[in-house]
Amino acid sequence: MVLRVAVAGASGYAGGEVLRLLQGHPEVEIGALTGGSNAGQRFGALQPHLIGLADRVLEPTNPQTLAGHDIVFLGLPHGQSAELAAQLGEDVLVVDLGADHRLRSAADWEQFYGSPHAGTWPYGLPELPGHRDALKGSKRIAVPGCYPTAVTLAMFPMFAAGLAEPEAVIIAASGTSGAGKAAKSHLLGSEVMGSMSPYGVGGGHRHTPEMAQNLTPLAGEPVTVSFTPTLAPMPRGILATCSAKAKPGTTAEKLRAAYREAYGDEPFVHLLPEGQWPHTSSVYGSNAAVLQVVLDEHAGRIIAISAIDNLVKGTAGGAVQSMNIALGLPEELGLPLNGVAP
Amino acid sequence: MVLRVAVAGASGYAGGEVLRLLQGHPEVEIGALTGGSNAGQRFGALQPHLIGLADRVLEPTNPQTLAGHDIVFLGLPHGQSAELAAQLGEDVLVVDLGADHRLRSAADWEQFYGSPHAGTWPYGLPELPGHRDALKGSKRIAVPGCYPTAVTLAMFPMFAAGLAEPEAVIIAASGTSGAGKAAKSHLLGSEVMGSMSPYGVGGGHRHTPEMAQNLTPLAGEPVTVSFTPTLAPMPRGILATCSAKAKPGTTAEKLRAAYREAYGDEPFVHLLPEGQWPHTSSVYGSNAAVLQVVLDEHAGRIIAISAIDNLVKGTAGGAVQSMNIALGLPEELGLPLNGVAP
Amino acid sequence: MVLRVAVAGASGYAGGEVLRLLQGHPEVEIGALTGGSNAGQRFGALQPHLIGLADRVLEPTNPQTLAGHDIVFLGLPHGQSAELAAQLGEDVLVVDLGADHRLRSAADWEQFYGSPHAGTWPYGLPELPGHRDALKGSKRIAVPGCYPTAVTLAMFPMFAAGLAEPEAVIIAASGTSGAGKAAKSHLLGSEVMGSMSPYGVGGGHRHTPEMAQNLTPLAGEPVTVSFTPTLAPMPRGILATCSAKAKPGTTAEKLRAAYREAYGDEPFVHLLPEGQWPHTSSVYGSNAAVLQVVLDEHAGRIIAISAIDNLVKGTAGGAVQSMNIALGLPEELGLPLNGVAP
Amino acid sequence: MVLRVAVAGASGYAGGEVLRLLQGHPEVEIGALTGGSNAGQRFGALQPHLIGLADRVLEPTNPQTLAGHDIVFLGLPHGQSAELAAQLGEDVLVVDLGADHRLRSAADWEQFYGSPHAGTWPYGLPELPGHRDALKGSKRIAVPGCYPTAVTLAMFPMFAAGLAEPEAVIIAASGTSGAGKAAKSHLLGSEVMGSMSPYGVGGGHRHTPEMAQNLTPLAGEPVTVSFTPTLAPMPRGILATCSAKAKPGTTAEKLRAAYREAYGDEPFVHLLPEGQWPHTSSVYGSNAAVLQVVLDEHAGRIIAISAIDNLVKGTAGGAVQSMNIALGLPEELGLPLNGVAP
Repeated sequence: MVLRVAVAGASGYAGGEVLRLLQGHPEVEIGALTGGSNAGQRFGALQPHLIGLADRVLEPTNPQTLAGHDIVFLGLPHGQSAELAAQLGEDVLVVDLGADHRLRSAADWEQFYGSPHAGTWPYGLPELPGHRDALKGSKRIAVPGCYPTAVTLAMFPMFAAGLAEPEAVIIAASGTSGAGKAAKSHLLGSEVMGSMSPYGVGGGHRHTPEMAQNLTPLAGEPVTVSFTPTLAPMPRGILATCSAKAKPGTTAEKLRAAYREAYGDEPFVHLLPEGQWPHTSSVYGSNAAVLQVVLDEHAGRIIAISAIDNLVKGTAGGAVQSMNIALGLPEELGLPLNGVAP
Repeated sequence: MVLRVAVAGASGYAGGEVLRLLQGHPEVEIGALTGGSNAGQRFGALQPHLIGLADRVLEPTNPQTLAGHDIVFLGLPHGQSAELAAQLGEDVLVVDLGADHRLRSAADWEQFYGSPHAGTWPYGLPELPGHRDALKGSKRIAVPGCYPTAVTLAMFPMFAAGLAEPEAVIIAASGTSGAGKAAKSHLLGSEVMGSMSPYGVGGGHRHTPEMAQNLTPLAGEPVTVSFTPTLAPMPRGILATCSAKAKPGTTAEKLRAAYREAYGDEPFVHLLPEGQWPHTSSVYGSNAAVLQVVLDEHAGRIIAISAIDNLVKGTAGGAVQSMNIALGLPEELGLPLNGVAP
Repeated sequence: MVLRVAVAGASGYAGGEVLRLLQGHPEVEIGALTGGSNAGQRFGALQPHLIGLADRVLEPTNPQTLAGHDIVFLGLPHGQSAELAAQLGEDVLVVDLGADHRLRSAADWEQFYGSPHAGTWPYGLPELPGHRDALKGSKRIAVPGCYPTAVTLAMFPMFAAGLAEPEAVIIAASGTSGAGKAAKSHLLGSEVMGSMSPYGVGGGHRHTPEMAQNLTPLAGEPVTVSFTPTLAPMPRGILATCSAKAKPGTTAEKLRAAYREAYGDEPFVHLLPEGQWPHTSSVYGSNAAVLQVVLDEHAGRIIAISAIDNLVKGTAGGAVQSMNIALGLPEELGLPLNGVAP
Repeated sequence: MVLRVAVAGASGYAGGEVLRLLQGHPEVEIGALTGGSNAGQRFGALQPHLIGLADRVLEPTNPQTLAGHDIVFLGLPHGQSAELAAQLGEDVLVVDLGADHRLRSAADWEQFYGSPHAGTWPYGLPELPGHRDALKGSKRIAVPGCYPTAVTLAMFPMFAAGLAEPEAVIIAASGTSGAGKAAKSHLLGSEVMGSMSPYGVGGGHRHTPEMAQNLTPLAGEPVTVSFTPTLAPMPRGILATCSAKAKPGTTAEKLRAAYREAYGDEPFVHLLPEGQWPHTSSVYGSNAAVLQVVLDEHAGRIIAISAIDNLVKGTAGGAVQSMNIALGLPEELGLPLNGVAP
């Protein structure tokens, strides 16, 4: 039986990427495509790369247009997802691409997002110990943030194995699609091509508490996160460089063993052979994460680096992977493993 | 029955793209991956984005390593394909990604390539009238050049409908992957980022006679081609801007009708609605070509513009599409229609 | 005596580039910087690369803030320049970076710009025969459009020497700064990086009549212009590929002779040696134009290609060069010849 | 009296940038341009953006071609500079753009470069306390590495003011020109555009001991450096994100005061106003460094971020600035402060 899917926010980058993936998914058919101010427009004018959906028309986002679907993806500004989801039936699988239901701490939510906490949903990062099971059969999925996905995959094994001190220093570079499709001067091509710049420095980025929430249970002690995001001159991709002091007794062998153990059976997380480093181009359009980890003995620090596509494993791919798990489908269904390169 | 495929030149851009597509093709399994100086290396070190094939090892290219396959793709420098193909069985489907068997005129071949002509194979551009049938059941396929693919699709309907004078002026921009993976100083990222430049100006580009060969039979008179390629600061994509003088009586309506007729049933060639223009980003990673055509009444010229991915519709995708036809499989099998954007 | 300069529209790309150049000009000092909605802001927040002016504050654009300067540059939307210039004294040198006073034909102006014609000023392309003299001592300068600059320099010698039929086919690629700094979704970095696309196809681009106006007098017969602009994934630069049918008797030698004669003494226009092609990277940040011309004997066409920096020779540099001429200063003063590369 | 300058390695990126800057320097004239395998070629074919030098011819690099100059810049692979410099007169000002004379520790040199130590020269980072005076009148200058320049400027004030624990975690993104002009497959435009990747991870990058050498004396205790360089898809620029644990009692006010004190009078190092972050585009082609520093109170860490142009302040500009000091010329002579943006 083919499942019927609606995508709210279909004209944005996250919604568009969900649709790109779902068009190659054998168990779903695409129903309503909804949006805000663009409602009524031909979809081909809004997402010209989704050639197979070009003749569709964008409908307005509301409970009526989303009714009658088995699965609803929400690619909406934070705050709006929670409100809309509450109006969808409990038997509908709702996958929230936004932040509303990621954080367990209401205090963190209110500090970083400035609005009332809407509660927590099962968290769509199946590779994080304990989370795959929680997704099975769930009717609600909170898709992780793109940076937390890259950082958590890069770092949790070193904490889970007790090899790292609980102070993470993370500097990540993201492609511009992470900043969305709304027109802003500082995101113009003229401004971003040929330029690197940081933003949200000093602990203020909203993804910081989400990283701590993921790493702390594995570490068994509170992990402090110092996170600096940077904007890179590319449309997609995150390269997360993650550093922590090595605990006494940590060796390169123990490190690699910890990562091999964490990811040995994972279809989408690949620890590279020694000496090979992650490139974001390798995962362009792919749901894979590629990782490397090394011990800097002189500085006494562990450096773990991951590359993901922020729109795939970091958003839409992670969402579809979690959807597959929730529905009891094969986890890899409809998800590209190979990147599009060069 | 699953068909077994070998790819010679698997570490290059064309060979890599064939493999990316074939890993998503339900009727084939990937056999030997062969190469030249890289033979013996782990494939993951050569094509790190082909994550599903990372643990393979590159074998040397020769008739022995290619034996025992139903299909062999050849991604080799011109001259080498012809020699190798002659050593492969006549029951093997050989798909040449290179130039050796594209040109019918031995004189053109010798003038532009400087070596003896190796004969002509069925030409893998099924949208060009008469060519789809010639591919059915064929055991040899010559995959068109990337520029001729973009240009022929953009221009043939105006000639076929008798609307254009037979003098084509073509200026095309290509991503850098069209220049291959061999290390050359002028193709360094430092040199190409932020820069546009022409090359092969004045009629010398090897794809020029191939364009004329495609367009002349449709025009019913010899079409003169003035072709200027330019290198654009992007990894993939061709935008071909093609211009010809309108014949008397040509109207915008007749033009659109000619293009609608030519492409109405084609799965991969899409005439955009009036007012929408092709972007190469729309077909990134996709086998689609997107087209627009307009009549400049003041200048009395027709402008037709196409966008393709040079490595997909322009090379590997066109090859797989033609392979599907040759084998009697559904033509769209394993071929992405949606582009990867943004 | 140092001349005092004001720049209206100082927070835009054209105004900013004028300021970058003028800060290196020994005969001027920078007075008022004015703008629209940004007035009151610290200049360093608006143009962070103009480090030497970071502590200035943007004033509102009006006759009062612009009063008391010897020279006023206007980087304003079309229509606004004419209105403001009329309120500035006749002894002030007014340099209009916009379009208001470029076209001699009121009919062309009204057709392409849709507003009343404001009259014509001396045209700031000193290399175009007859124009350098007209600039000397002038108190009003209309700076040419960026595309007309690139195209006129590439093409006028072939027409002036009677070597080309009067039908120009032009396809030009421009960096995104040509589209300005206003926030628009289709100009986001996510959209333009990795993509080429055309716009204004079919004769509608406003620079078309300006090209014809420049070329026709040299040709001695009306030159028809078919112009297709494309957007390239780079912040700056124009590569103009210009083609016309060769008149009978045209030879490669006559062509090169015509270009050598046209540009032999020009400080900023450089005909490259045979076999070397223009790259926009060569003129990044420079006031130079680099050119090449070739005869395609098979197709019977002349191909002339120019590269300029759209913001320098195409806007601010051409403006300063013309200002120097108007003021009787050395023409090259304050203008970089070398590009910034790689 | 105008000084005569030779540049060895004139066809490389560092040598080319020295020439770009020196062509705008009023006190020098450009003498011999020398190179290796390209000797005998027209300079315009090798560095097409240096339009003012296009008709020069590259001479071979040897003591004879370099004789008769007041100043010699050496842009050579490490090892070659030391050997050549020993053959140049002691009255010639020799400016080494390479690494040979940067490190004071012979042990560090041998560990990281694998060859005998050639001795230490005055270090061309005048902003580092004590170094400006050492440059005055010197006949030998060791130009710092590009990463150490960016990192030292970002970090030394926090150590000099006793605000940071002596363990630096540094992750820097560099444009591709830092990797030089030699043709390598992994530096092709096709490979680097749209991709971020790390290299030299784990303490192995040769610039690591140079950073420690610069920071340790200011800290008054040994500073451990964990340095991860990454390659960014842009031709130029370094963004260095530098982190250290705050010592007890460190406040945001003390931090800003320390940076203001360090750079208050410096012409080329600019601490940005609070809330504004460095962009590499702001210093494209400029000798400026732009900085920001912030205290992350939750994580207890200081984050300092600098942006420079790796080829200007990071190489050729720092070299010319140091040359000016050595010669007793105004320090800013011939050096652009404004960047070329957008």
